Order: sequence, then C-alpha cells, then structure tokens
Amino acid sequence: MDISEKNAPDKDKDAAEQEMGYIVVLTGNGKGKTTSALGMAMRALGHGARVIMLQFLKGTWRYGELEAAKRLSPDFSIHPLGKGFVHVDPENPDPADIETARKAWEACKEALFSGKYEMIILDEINNAISYGLLPVDEVLDALAKRPQNLHVVLTGRDAHPRLLEMADLITEVTEVRHPYRKGAAARKGIEY
Amino acid sequence: MDISEKNAPDKDKDAAEQEMGYIVVLTGNGKGKTTSALGMAMRALGHGARVIMLQFLKGTWRYGELEAAKRLSPDFSIHPLGKGFVHVDPENPDPADIETARKAWEACKEALFSGKYEMIILDEINNAISYGLLPVDEVLDALAKRPQNLHVVLTGRDAHPRLLEMADLITEVTEVRHPYRKGAAARKGIEY
Repeated sequence: MDISEKNAPDKDKDAAEQEMGYIVVLTGNGKGKTTSALGMAMRALGHGARVIMLQFLKGTWRYGELEAAKRLSPDFSIHPLGKGFVHVDPENPDPADIETARKAWEACKEALFSGKYEMIILDEINNAISYGLLPVDEVLDALAKRPQNLHVVLTGRDAHPRLLEMADLITEVTEVRHPYRKGAAARKGIEY
Repeated sequence: MDISEKNAPDKDKDAAEQEMGYIVVLTGNGKGKTTSALGMAMRALGHGARVIMLQFLKGTWRYGELEAAKRLSPDFSIHPLGKGFVHVDPENPDPADIETARKAWEACKEALFSGKYEMIILDEINNAISYGLLPVDEVLDALAKRPQNLHVVLTGRDAHPRLLEMADLITEVTEVRHPYRKGAAARKGIEY
C-alpha cells in the first residue's frame, strides 16, 4: 500500500507527495543499520533539517554517535533510552524490559508530535517490537497520525511485516564478512 | 586472506591488529551505499578523526552531502571528481571517461599517502573499476601500501572480487522497495 494514497486521495496527489515525509525502514542482519541512519541524519542536517535519534536498546557506553552528534550539529541529538544490549525471550519478556521499552516509546511519541523535527530516527525499535516489548499496532497508529512532512527512520533487525507494508523505503543491510568473525576487536570510529 | 596477517607477520599480531586501519567495502544494488559511508564518516568524526570523501562518478549538483560536510565539521570534506552520472560501455569506454577516472584516482592516491586523514572514502570507485575506467591492480597496490592506521571505505555496486578478498568488512546494501519505482520524485534530505 502506498502511504501517500491514504493521505492524499485527491487529484493533486503529486503535490501532496512532495510534502509527505518518508517512512524508512533499515533492516537486515548487518552491523550497518545505525550507521546508515546516521548517514541519513547527516544528509538531512545538510538540508537544514532538525534531527533526533532515539535509541531503544542501547546504553550510553562505547558509542561514538553521542560524541559525534554533540560535535557536529546543534540540530542533532541522540538519546539512548535502553539499557545496553538485552537478550529477551519474546515468549516471556521481563516486565522491567517492557517498562523500559514503554518509557522509550513515550519519548518517541512526544518527539513525533512535538513539531520540533523534520526527521526522527527510532533506532532498534524493530527489535523492541519483535522482542514483544512494544505492540506494533501502537507504532503503526502513531506513524499514520504523524505530521505529514516528518521523515521517520526505523532501524533494527526483524522488522515487522506490517511496518514493511507501510514503509516508503526499505533498505536491507547485510553483513557479508566481518572482522568479529576473525577474532578482531571492535574498532573505535568504525564499529561504534 | 586476512590483511592483518600480511602486514603484521610477527608474534605481536593482536597489538598490530589494533592499530590497523580497516578496508571497508559498501556494495549492493541499494541507494544507501553513500549514505552508509556518510554514517561511517560521522562516527569517525565523533572520535576526532579527519575524514575525506572523494567521489568518482558524481557531479556537484543536487547533493546534500557537500552542504552537510561544510556545515558539520571542519574535519570533513567531500570532493566530487566525476561528471555526474555516466553510462559506460565496459567493453569500449570513452577515453574522456578514462581520463576523468585517472585524474580522480591521482587525487585519491594523494589523499591516501598525505597523512592528513584517518578515514578516506572512495565513493563509487567500485563502479569506476567495473566500468573498465580504472585498473583494479593499481587500487589494490595502493591500498596495500597505505599508512597502516588509515581506514579506507570503498563504495559502489559490482565491487571487484579481488577487492572483496582484501576487505576486512563488506556490507551489502539492498533496496527492497523504493518510491522511485512508484513514480515519486527523489526527496530532498533523504535521497540526496
């Protein structure tokens, strides 16, 4: 389904499409999904957009993004709302993890409807949904009601089929080879 | 072949590996390869690295990256060295295109051995190689001789097998769905 058709049923569809923000899903098994999202942020900032990244599952430690965001632009900020890497049993999620995801989602909704941004990146929200920490219906509903010109980028593996259905752009990032597999340590500035 | 083995044959391999720059190849059919490279630039800048992107096939028009680079950091610059999008017959490339690629490659080598950067992005160099505009041997040779701690990111579709063999990290970016296919125009801040 083309989201623009739902929001712009009138004859002047092309003009409306020009105003519509994209829903972008970055998924796949690669390490590069958040990196790609950072690149999208960079492009948008170059056009004068205000961008926020809300991170669902990551803690604050070891991430060059936070430092990068602070250094690079007053119009960009990254907010870690998770608790580091979590290992969740989707059949039986920990109530504490659900609570963390719930609070993160509240922060996302506030950003989505604040009017303060032209691009919002919901980093690893796909994982939060697939882990059973966040109902996909709530996310789809908020996306449908978002300000028309707002771009939303949703990252993480195992993107929900209904989210893919709603997306304007889906990019799959696949890791073909990775030095982790050869035993090398993560490299500062490349991996994090 | 693990590049670290060639450059650090001694017993203290782990320490040497920590110092080694990565060779990263971003390939696949997706629109997101340059975007991913921008994200890598952003991460590296966050760690205080100096980064340059040299673009083989793109002209200066319509790219938010140039503006973004200027706005975001004095330690990042983007240099378009191509002539916009080209359509090359690999069996019979235009001498003018070869000359353009040759000049771009000279600029790349200068950057590679300048000692001025911690990360160099050779954007769409893979295409220049696959189009027959640039001999892969020359590229592999320069990469092998580069300063040890320099990260080099090579983007573009149809990455050469010998380059993939040399890479520490290969990420394939696949376009699953794209609004171009639905007839929408490219969206400023997202696509360019």
